[in-house]
Amino acid sequence: MRTRIYEIIEIADENDIASRVYDITMMISIVVSLVPVAAKRTDGIYWYMDICTTMIFMVDYLLRLFTADKKLRKGAKSFLVYPVTPMAIIDLLAILPSLIAVNGGLRLIKLLRLLRTLRVFRVFKAVRYSKSIPIIVQAFKKQRESLAVVGVLAIGYIMVSALIVISIEPETFPTFFDAVYWATVSLTTVGYGDIYAVSTAGKIITMISSVFGIAIVALPAGIITAGYMDEIKMKKKAEKEEKKNEKNEK
Amino acid sequence: MRTRIYEIIEIADENDIASRVYDITMMISIVVSLVPVAAKRTDGIYWYMDICTTMIFMVDYLLRLFTADKKLRKGAKSFLVYPVTPMAIIDLLAILPSLIAVNGGLRLIKLLRLLRTLRVFRVFKAVRYSKSIPIIVQAFKKQRESLAVVGVLAIGYIMVSALIVISIEPETFPTFFDAVYWATVSLTTVGYGDIYAVSTAGKIITMISSVFGIAIVALPAGIITAGYMDEIKMKKKAEKEEKKNEKNEK
Amino acid sequence: MRTRIYEIIEIADENDIASRVYDITMMISIVVSLVPVAAKRTDGIYWYMDICTTMIFMVDYLLRLFTADKKLRKGAKSFLVYPVTPMAIIDLLAILPSLIAVNGGLRLIKLLRLLRTLRVFRVFKAVRYSKSIPIIVQAFKKQRESLAVVGVLAIGYIMVSALIVISIEPETFPTFFDAVYWATVSLTTVGYGDIYAVSTAGKIITMISSVFGIAIVALPAGIITAGYMDEIKMKKKAEKEEKKNEKNEK
Amino acid sequence: MRTRIYEIIEIADENDIASRVYDITMMISIVVSLVPVAAKRTDGIYWYMDICTTMIFMVDYLLRLFTADKKLRKGAKSFLVYPVTPMAIIDLLAILPSLIAVNGGLRLIKLLRLLRTLRVFRVFKAVRYSKSIPIIVQAFKKQRESLAVVGVLAIGYIMVSALIVISIEPETFPTFFDAVYWATVSLTTVGYGDIYAVSTAGKIITMISSVFGIAIVALPAGIITAGYMDEIKMKKKAEKEEKKNEKNEK
Repeated sequence: MRTRIYEIIEIADENDIASRVYDITMMISIVVSLVPVAAKRTDGIYWYMDICTTMIFMVDYLLRLFTADKKLRKGAKSFLVYPVTPMAIIDLLAILPSLIAVNGGLRLIKLLRLLRTLRVFRVFKAVRYSKSIPIIVQAFKKQRESLAVVGVLAIGYIMVSALIVISIEPETFPTFFDAVYWATVSLTTVGYGDIYAVSTAGKIITMISSVFGIAIVALPAGIITAGYMDEIKMKKKAEKEEKKNEKNEK
Repeated sequence: MRTRIYEIIEIADENDIASRVYDITMMISIVVSLVPVAAKRTDGIYWYMDICTTMIFMVDYLLRLFTADKKLRKGAKSFLVYPVTPMAIIDLLAILPSLIAVNGGLRLIKLLRLLRTLRVFRVFKAVRYSKSIPIIVQAFKKQRESLAVVGVLAIGYIMVSALIVISIEPETFPTFFDAVYWATVSLTTVGYGDIYAVSTAGKIITMISSVFGIAIVALPAGIITAGYMDEIKMKKKAEKEEKKNEKNEK
Repeated sequence: MRTRIYEIIEIADENDIASRVYDITMMISIVVSLVPVAAKRTDGIYWYMDICTTMIFMVDYLLRLFTADKKLRKGAKSFLVYPVTPMAIIDLLAILPSLIAVNGGLRLIKLLRLLRTLRVFRVFKAVRYSKSIPIIVQAFKKQRESLAVVGVLAIGYIMVSALIVISIEPETFPTFFDAVYWATVSLTTVGYGDIYAVSTAGKIITMISSVFGIAIVALPAGIITAGYMDEIKMKKKAEKEEKKNEKNEK
Repeated sequence: MRTRIYEIIEIADENDIASRVYDITMMISIVVSLVPVAAKRTDGIYWYMDICTTMIFMVDYLLRLFTADKKLRKGAKSFLVYPVTPMAIIDLLAILPSLIAVNGGLRLIKLLRLLRTLRVFRVFKAVRYSKSIPIIVQAFKKQRESLAVVGVLAIGYIMVSALIVISIEPETFPTFFDAVYWATVSLTTVGYGDIYAVSTAGKIITMISSVFGIAIVALPAGIITAGYMDEIKMKKKAEKEEKKNEKNEK
């Protein structure tokens, strides 16, 4: 029976109806569990939504733990290793906030808000059921080195811009955090207009920083796009060759 | 005679003067019919503009219905199938608003505004007469799969950003819709500045969300551009080969 | 002597000192002539700047007209054809504003502002002396067809967005011009925040319009960049082959 | 002993522990030295941070000067040439501000602010210890010519936009600097919303300037991205061939 449960939970077999039903139930549960977060309410129907989905997630968590050895293929050790794998931690984070809220009551308001935020992590449970995420993850992995380099450069550039602007115009930027926020919002060209340099020196820094920085801050985006396009090309090629091989075999 | 009408309406033959006159008349009618929308007025000359163009569109609709069998090549069934084809529905939407407004009078103000908005659909009638749209539509179709994937990713990223920000800073974002609006305006880097996070936690989310999100939200744009460039290259190649073939034949 | 003047004015020979002096004088004159525009002043030293540079431009204009036959190689007809060539018209526009201002006095304030604006056209005189502009002009020309297509698409998209938004939210957008301004500022992602939709329906239009529109409005920029890169590659290739040929000849 | 010091300071040998300790000490010192700048404070613990790191930088400067002949390989002349090399000037700029502040006391407040700003230059000391910067510097160098051309074009475009807007709407832009700031913030699409055209003529200029300008101002960013991607590809190729050669040698 454990083998059957494992098949239902983990293996994405299009023809296995029980497996498909399980996946769809989980996806609906994830969406429903996020409705109270989006609606910012915890009463009435929203409370039931939270309770029901939390229970479904608990059952899911226990079933996955129960079949951990089938997945990790490490015998009895699997049951100890499984709870610390990334996906299992995400699963736990999806349950805990509501569990604590239910048990601890409404006394700890501050903590509750943090917990409400943690519930958003439930969305990452969906990663398991999405087909489009693996491609982009692959693209990220292939370009890992380049991304690390340009990521460091981009963060470095933002930090230097923030340091220069806070030195030149300390009145506008009360803390270093404000300067970093300004630099990020400016160099990504979002430019809300809630914070900006007002002195002439500060405006000059804004201009120089923008003209040069946009190229540097846009580098990671460029690399991801290029990597993603490559990934798609390779996938198409692989599919074509597969078809050819099938023909040749016939 | 029906064959001749069909030729005039549907076939874009450069040498057929009647056909060209018809096309130009329609283009002018579309532009004129949108003038009252742009001017936000329904009196005097604007009223006549609306009435005249609606009549022209009605004649056009009836002529197209009248020659539907020539177009769809399905015999008598064509007359039933034609009204539910996408272009025929657009044509109908271009007529209805003014028709109802004329008959129903000015009693239903609320409904009238919706109708006024629907009149904008007339612009899509122009699709039939544009030469540049097919290329971009082709580019969209070729990249359909990729676009679907990155589209889902982009929308997912916007939703997750909205969920996180509404959890962390519920004071700034009264409804989930506000959070989604904020996420969209920020990640497309428009950044009007009408809504933005004000708390430190919210600003941190803004920064992380922007730096990572811009790459993801920009992916569809990147794919469309790349697809469009490929389409142009292929078109040029095809034209070259055509010329070569013509030479070889001689 | 006319041949010598022509050589000095038109032929960019690195070794001809007189020619180089002339070019540098003109460049300085252009920059100096724009100082009063930038400083928004017409008194004292600024007045002399304007007068002197206008005189230099007049002499330049007359010398060019005087040697028009050497340039256009059309005999006596050249003197009639030259004044209507694009560069000659720009040259004339660079002189006229100051000339009229000097003669007409300060009576016509309104007209003077227009004239002050026209003086900015002097900057286009610099096109003649710039080495980098021909490459970008070449890139524009090569991609002319594609640019026309995506330009029409971009303008069309802006117009449709404006039409839809003015229909849905007429309170925010008093005139069609305001709606077009909003659409342009939003779709180029500048997003000043001086005008934006406030109703829920308007915000939905903003979001849909942005997510799709950015790709379309960014297409011309993408095409110019790609075209420019190709132009540079071809130039480098041509230079390499030239060097090879030189070697082979030896 | 001087040879050993030189090895420790300059040669990045993974196996030389003393060298690695020295590099890490310097990196920490740079970060610590910038903490008072970011915190905008000069009292208590921040004062000690400043003093200690300045002393470390002084020792570093003297050690580098002391072994200059090993680096420049020009004999005794090296000791005179070294202080004017770019990196040595940056090193000096990293020391001077604090040195003067300590000696000169707190009398010259205005000068002190400038000095505080100069301390930001310490960040450039980190260039010596970063592995990712050489690649981007290489990318910049390879595309130097193209970058110079498009850089001039971008600056020219900003200047022309500023000139036109100041002529058309002098009320909004009190000085030419304001107009340049507006043009830069608009064409990089940051668009804070602190300054924008309000007249109809000014808005038309804004629209035309944006639609065309974004392509031109984005060119440098595009070229840097393309150059960087090429650089990475070449590096990967070089690494592959190195591995092949190693195999063949075996």
